[in-house]
Amino acid sequence: MKKIPDLVLDCLKNNHTFLILLHQKPDGDAIGSAVAMGKGLKKLNKTVDYYIDMPLEDKLLFFDEIKCFNQSLKDSYDVIIFLDCSTSSFAFSPAEMPAAKTKLVIDHHKSNAHYGDLNFVEITGATAEIVFRILKGLQVVFDDEMADAIFTGITTDTGSFQFSNVTVDTHLIASELYAIKSNYAHLSKRLHTQKNIDQMKMTGAAIHSLEILDSMPIAMMILDQDTIVKYGGNINITEDVANLGQNTIGVSITALLKEIDAGHYRVSLRAKYPFDIHEIALKYGGGGHERAAGFNFSGDIDQLKRDLMTVYESQNGKS
Amino acid sequence: MKKIPDLVLDCLKNNHTFLILLHQKPDGDAIGSAVAMGKGLKKLNKTVDYYIDMPLEDKLLFFDEIKCFNQSLKDSYDVIIFLDCSTSSFAFSPAEMPAAKTKLVIDHHKSNAHYGDLNFVEITGATAEIVFRILKGLQVVFDDEMADAIFTGITTDTGSFQFSNVTVDTHLIASELYAIKSNYAHLSKRLHTQKNIDQMKMTGAAIHSLEILDSMPIAMMILDQDTIVKYGGNINITEDVANLGQNTIGVSITALLKEIDAGHYRVSLRAKYPFDIHEIALKYGGGGHERAAGFNFSGDIDQLKRDLMTVYESQNGKS
Repeated sequence: MKKIPDLVLDCLKNNHTFLILLHQKPDGDAIGSAVAMGKGLKKLNKTVDYYIDMPLEDKLLFFDEIKCFNQSLKDSYDVIIFLDCSTSSFAFSPAEMPAAKTKLVIDHHKSNAHYGDLNFVEITGATAEIVFRILKGLQVVFDDEMADAIFTGITTDTGSFQFSNVTVDTHLIASELYAIKSNYAHLSKRLHTQKNIDQMKMTGAAIHSLEILDSMPIAMMILDQDTIVKYGGNINITEDVANLGQNTIGVSITALLKEIDAGHYRVSLRAKYPFDIHEIALKYGGGGHERAAGFNFSGDIDQLKRDLMTVYESQNGKS
Repeated sequence: MKKIPDLVLDCLKNNHTFLILLHQKPDGDAIGSAVAMGKGLKKLNKTVDYYIDMPLEDKLLFFDEIKCFNQSLKDSYDVIIFLDCSTSSFAFSPAEMPAAKTKLVIDHHKSNAHYGDLNFVEITGATAEIVFRILKGLQVVFDDEMADAIFTGITTDTGSFQFSNVTVDTHLIASELYAIKSNYAHLSKRLHTQKNIDQMKMTGAAIHSLEILDSMPIAMMILDQDTIVKYGGNINITEDVANLGQNTIGVSITALLKEIDAGHYRVSLRAKYPFDIHEIALKYGGGGHERAAGFNFSGDIDQLKRDLMTVYESQNGKS
């Protein structure tokens, strides 16, 4: 765990007006980091504004502090803080960016472009871990909502302490959160296991359609337009639907097809190491990474199946 | 965190032959505790036998130490250790119990009957937490498999650090485990998210059948016999199938009906505080607790629905 540099602590201590920015479509780590940082600075009698891409996912709407989001915007701030945001173009910013003496970047992404005047970037489980350490460094006393905010950041970005980004420090910070507030069971349930009835039914429909291709470790799921409309539209297809295939023992590659218009699909691909499905997404005019990619598709699904099987066969045994 | 009593440490230090027993149908915490304790004692040059109720769930079959289970049984031991076992009748024991100078009980269940000659019972997230502290007290050096074993106990009994039994200590111990072995992502996936294709399809079928009763917060799911047979039988109905209804936002009471024979069902009930479904299970000749109960049923499903709605209506607003 790197020491938080005095420059960062001094920047927060010695200035008075702050604007907090996050990435577009803010997730649990972005919102948790913003709420904790904003409330923490207010406890030090600072003035804090937030400019946040709304609406948020329902599960994140429990913070009281959200009522302070997007309330006002000054022409200039002492400091603009970019939280959980790897590049400035990825940030959700006002059309006309207020002036600032200092742009302070706090982030945990390896890919961070160090675009601030002052940058604190460390590869941790969540940006919220860094925010926690900063606020401790500023000797801020945490209230329950701030503890919930840090916990939200950590538990959402680490998949409830399951992903490979978890470290010794992640659990040390979690133990300190339990010393502040003794129970996060209700919050964990809200963030991880609860679905509305449409999301639940959409999950069921995806599993129902789940097909294993030709005894190969490839899963395909198709959500047709009727199903998507019936269960409330695209907004109710949660991220974990795309992962359902991958959670099936023996599956290495998954394709989820969402029918946007009759015969037109949005395809989400997932692969496990060492398989790389990036090239197939590129072939169909899409993009992404080795293990997660996507593209729009309106061709022959059997051809797509053959392409997936060819990718698998050509890459199998290469690891 | 209570100090581990010297009596317990001395009992393990000063004796030589140990038999480890667990509860029937051992879960991740029981098996993890046994593997860590057994390997830890062997590192101190003790002789350790295990008498364990097999077979285990597939997801737990990765420990090398399992090959030492049920290999031999002496007529007598210095110490029989009961792990994660609240009463002696709940223990899985040999028909003829070997003699022992000391019966040592180590457990985290509030209901523990203190049936040993020596009992260390503390309400923790998992028995594995106590085993970890005991082995540290004995200055045992942990290997990777022992770290995996403790992690398995903790993560399974706390629902991946989500349940209300998690404490400051749970996360402190987890942080120490990450200092021994830096990545538990693969293990977490194995224990929490992976399902075989039949379990996945069974989950899908349960969601497909999920019905909300009359706009009340009651969910009913029915797995008919054909479906159960098609997806490999009862063994593939995982615990989380019964929880699917409860994970639906707005649902307070869930009934899962599994058709064992034509028209004959095993019913699993779940309730959220303050609802109590124990009485309805008793009415139908079953048993359980306030929040989880079950019974066999071969009557009119519509009558069962009405009974559930009556329970809800009579208890609603009582909290």
